[in-house]
Amino acid sequence: MSAHFQTVALVGRYADAPVAEAMAALATNAAERGIRVYVDRSNTAAFQAPVERVDESAFADSAQLLVAVGGDGTLLHAARLAYSRDLPLLGINRGRLGFLADVAAAEMLERFGDVLAGRYSRDVRHLLAACLHGPDGAERRAVALNDVVVQKWETGRMLDFETWIDGRYVNTHGGDGLVAATSTGSTAYALSCGGPIIQPDLDALVLAPICPHTLSDRPIVVSRRCEIEVRLVPRAATKAQVTCDGVVLGDLEPEARLTIGPAPERVTLLHPPGYDYYRILRSKLHWGRGARHAHPET
Amino acid sequence: MSAHFQTVALVGRYADAPVAEAMAALATNAAERGIRVYVDRSNTAAFQAPVERVDESAFADSAQLLVAVGGDGTLLHAARLAYSRDLPLLGINRGRLGFLADVAAAEMLERFGDVLAGRYSRDVRHLLAACLHGPDGAERRAVALNDVVVQKWETGRMLDFETWIDGRYVNTHGGDGLVAATSTGSTAYALSCGGPIIQPDLDALVLAPICPHTLSDRPIVVSRRCEIEVRLVPRAATKAQVTCDGVVLGDLEPEARLTIGPAPERVTLLHPPGYDYYRILRSKLHWGRGARHAHPET
Amino acid sequence: MSAHFQTVALVGRYADAPVAEAMAALATNAAERGIRVYVDRSNTAAFQAPVERVDESAFADSAQLLVAVGGDGTLLHAARLAYSRDLPLLGINRGRLGFLADVAAAEMLERFGDVLAGRYSRDVRHLLAACLHGPDGAERRAVALNDVVVQKWETGRMLDFETWIDGRYVNTHGGDGLVAATSTGSTAYALSCGGPIIQPDLDALVLAPICPHTLSDRPIVVSRRCEIEVRLVPRAATKAQVTCDGVVLGDLEPEARLTIGPAPERVTLLHPPGYDYYRILRSKLHWGRGARHAHPET
Amino acid sequence: MSAHFQTVALVGRYADAPVAEAMAALATNAAERGIRVYVDRSNTAAFQAPVERVDESAFADSAQLLVAVGGDGTLLHAARLAYSRDLPLLGINRGRLGFLADVAAAEMLERFGDVLAGRYSRDVRHLLAACLHGPDGAERRAVALNDVVVQKWETGRMLDFETWIDGRYVNTHGGDGLVAATSTGSTAYALSCGGPIIQPDLDALVLAPICPHTLSDRPIVVSRRCEIEVRLVPRAATKAQVTCDGVVLGDLEPEARLTIGPAPERVTLLHPPGYDYYRILRSKLHWGRGARHAHPET
Repeated sequence: MSAHFQTVALVGRYADAPVAEAMAALATNAAERGIRVYVDRSNTAAFQAPVERVDESAFADSAQLLVAVGGDGTLLHAARLAYSRDLPLLGINRGRLGFLADVAAAEMLERFGDVLAGRYSRDVRHLLAACLHGPDGAERRAVALNDVVVQKWETGRMLDFETWIDGRYVNTHGGDGLVAATSTGSTAYALSCGGPIIQPDLDALVLAPICPHTLSDRPIVVSRRCEIEVRLVPRAATKAQVTCDGVVLGDLEPEARLTIGPAPERVTLLHPPGYDYYRILRSKLHWGRGARHAHPET
Repeated sequence: MSAHFQTVALVGRYADAPVAEAMAALATNAAERGIRVYVDRSNTAAFQAPVERVDESAFADSAQLLVAVGGDGTLLHAARLAYSRDLPLLGINRGRLGFLADVAAAEMLERFGDVLAGRYSRDVRHLLAACLHGPDGAERRAVALNDVVVQKWETGRMLDFETWIDGRYVNTHGGDGLVAATSTGSTAYALSCGGPIIQPDLDALVLAPICPHTLSDRPIVVSRRCEIEVRLVPRAATKAQVTCDGVVLGDLEPEARLTIGPAPERVTLLHPPGYDYYRILRSKLHWGRGARHAHPET
Repeated sequence: MSAHFQTVALVGRYADAPVAEAMAALATNAAERGIRVYVDRSNTAAFQAPVERVDESAFADSAQLLVAVGGDGTLLHAARLAYSRDLPLLGINRGRLGFLADVAAAEMLERFGDVLAGRYSRDVRHLLAACLHGPDGAERRAVALNDVVVQKWETGRMLDFETWIDGRYVNTHGGDGLVAATSTGSTAYALSCGGPIIQPDLDALVLAPICPHTLSDRPIVVSRRCEIEVRLVPRAATKAQVTCDGVVLGDLEPEARLTIGPAPERVTLLHPPGYDYYRILRSKLHWGRGARHAHPET
Repeated sequence: MSAHFQTVALVGRYADAPVAEAMAALATNAAERGIRVYVDRSNTAAFQAPVERVDESAFADSAQLLVAVGGDGTLLHAARLAYSRDLPLLGINRGRLGFLADVAAAEMLERFGDVLAGRYSRDVRHLLAACLHGPDGAERRAVALNDVVVQKWETGRMLDFETWIDGRYVNTHGGDGLVAATSTGSTAYALSCGGPIIQPDLDALVLAPICPHTLSDRPIVVSRRCEIEVRLVPRAATKAQVTCDGVVLGDLEPEARLTIGPAPERVTLLHPPGYDYYRILRSKLHWGRGARHAHPET
């Protein structure tokens, strides 16, 4: 059998026993197909099949497919390993179905086989690039698949900040911060902040204020190609931090600027047959449960 | 002086004295420039300048510019007169600034002059087409600049309805109904239903459930090019009505289907110099008022 | 065995087969205990035990306990039969657990036995009284266990209405209407309108605007002993209807006033052992599902 | 003229020039009436009238009336000085009207005169007591007029925490934290978290989750006499902090418990004639602005 992928890298929190077991089973399955398997150098899980231990930062150079085992957090981590070369990603869920890790554990080997045999669809997700421009001209950049978050930090005091879209002043906000989420990230933190669900293939981003002081300060959906700028209004005893997919980018100093715009990088998710975005939404959001006349499929 | 427009039609609720006065002033101003002015046949306002009284349904054939005087409701009415030929629209507000009627009364003649002299930007707004497919094959169609609304009708009982996007089942909803709003309409009724603000040039629509029974039944933003379908789940004593921009399209019968998709028609708004979408948002939503460190511009 | 109740009345939608079966089983069970059973005169269900068929409006005079079989809608109907004499109510659910009908079908006979043997707690729920004061001095009054709702009616046009609390002007609202809910009703329609959950034993009511035009027009929680007044702001083509627990009280005419205040009537729910309000909340609202570290009890 | 109060203490951020000027004017006015005036020892504002400089912690022992000049933050600070002896508080606003500081600057001296002459109403506000019970048995206690807040701290990671009311398990929450607000605090941070407005004289508290992961995790209103308990679900890399009216009480350690209950202390606000809670709500929340048929009073 000639597989579509000759090399596969496995990513997961191997300290978590069920994850380690799943990784071992996937490695054995791949090896039986003659596929070379990479795992991170630090991975201490017990593999029966031969695996190559390299630094995970080298996955994008060596592997043709990245398989992430775990929850959406693990998949975000895997995505960071895949950005530079647009390495395709398969997400396998060890617990409940995730928005990104959409293969259920129970059918893991079957779906893995589907993908290796070329039975999958490609789902390209666009990214945001965030850049902190310090008052001294220094720049720190990171990309995000889900969201760029500015939030109050080390103090309970409300932030005051200004937003600009494509160079035009939008608003001065008071509150706990701001989420700039991709359509992919619209179902993550932004949803808890009152943002809408955005269909993954709509090339948009949502700016959702976090616990805004002004009740009419509502989420705004704009093209992902817009250039967003955020600046703090200087106040004593406020501090803001910027994170990209939960990873700290740095502090937003009163004299600094945060810009958020489209990233050239992208992430390609592979979905085995049967993938249905709305089914995942229904499952994750408990839609339809208890509806008096439920749809037969539900 | 050679004007960009040789013919202008004026629309407004002339029974409202300030509107009638504004229409008269605009007619005089236009006549002085040698521009022919049309008003509706039924218009009883007193004009000092010569106006031609035709049926307003003929405006699109006779006029090169439609000027709507009033609130957003008047502009929605004018838009229906302009659809068929994409007649450009200028909205003059007699009260508070509107989202669509964005020329303030105080500077009406000056801005009218700007537009006649060619000093304006064109702002094309996309429309939705709604179609009621009856069980007997009959079809009723209408277009909407703001929104298509399905809502409970003549009964306080909750509706149960299913939604489909591009042929894929999305959810079975319980609640008061559903708003499908364009980006233009996102700041109208959909905003009261928890929907986001959508930037006007994003070609998207939002499906916002009205008072949904399930709290996680949140607004979804999709491409305006999607084909939406809504069907009632039959229940005793429920009745649903469909409106397009507030105008009744018909009842949604249990056996019928409502489809919503992109309309080929469009509306072109003309904005005199100084138009700023975000300034209108700030004004309409009382943003920034009372902010401790307000932006100087606010 | 000496039962606490010598007479029991059964209420339910007997046209629904599972409900009819449950009613029959309860009747047999009661008859075996020597308890007299009443059902509505129109009830066509097949009973093996002897039942007395009277008009259900006479239940309050003849029975010592009212057993409602069905959902919360059936229990609201039963509550209306019980108001006048504070007849205690036991709610048995045929489908999913309800907020009011909190005995699951599976343990129906066991819990019924508990209650007949005196093993129950009493849970007194307070009511609201609504009164429509017509321009001609006519008055129409009804009480509500869940809520009094004012909503737009036979037209898609927004209502404008004023609210007053204990004679003091509160606000002029634009929107689809207003829900005045008891703490009991706080988890019904008011919750879909953005209202909070109110603990049943807090003697409060919430005024929740329905899809308010002004985004800062938020729910207000006040003492249930407050006197609320609602008046329409006259506008062309608007019409409002008032319902109490879903039953139409009448139209709110532009010249009329709606007052809402505490009712002297009350409803006494009986809960078999094991009743836990928060468990019902968790179940109905899908709380804790998918929490990564779920509480053991969940 | 015999004043109701022989001694007055003035509180405010005297580094803020308009506040210092207002304090000086109030001191002069009081001195002219033969009233003794206290200010904080560190106060460097220029007073023309004689003032006594004592430590502000001694105000409750020396003064009969506390006048707070500034915003709601200053009034919360003043409230902490007044708790121990229920010293009455008058709030004078230097900027926009506040919920607590309800005397406008423009009529400051006139209203001050009203209060000194006994023309005022007393408005008793109840407090919450928060207590952190450490794993070692240590306890830290503080009271709050507005709210007790548990929030994530020094990390962007979501908190998982359990809530208990009067010893009964309520829910396991995922999110940014929890606000327990009094009716007084319901219009502060809790409102930004989706909580309702609670009428000041309703003896209730609202538990409002902050950006909850589960969308149906809604605010709950309970009696202020309830005993609330909050415990963290242990997770790596989460940290929670507890604040009372914005002042840090301490970290909520994984093994610790936070209890929130009624405080015996209380705060008495004095309102000059003309106080109207709903007028303040309308002003602060921009209600009624732009309503098409505004109430004449607005």
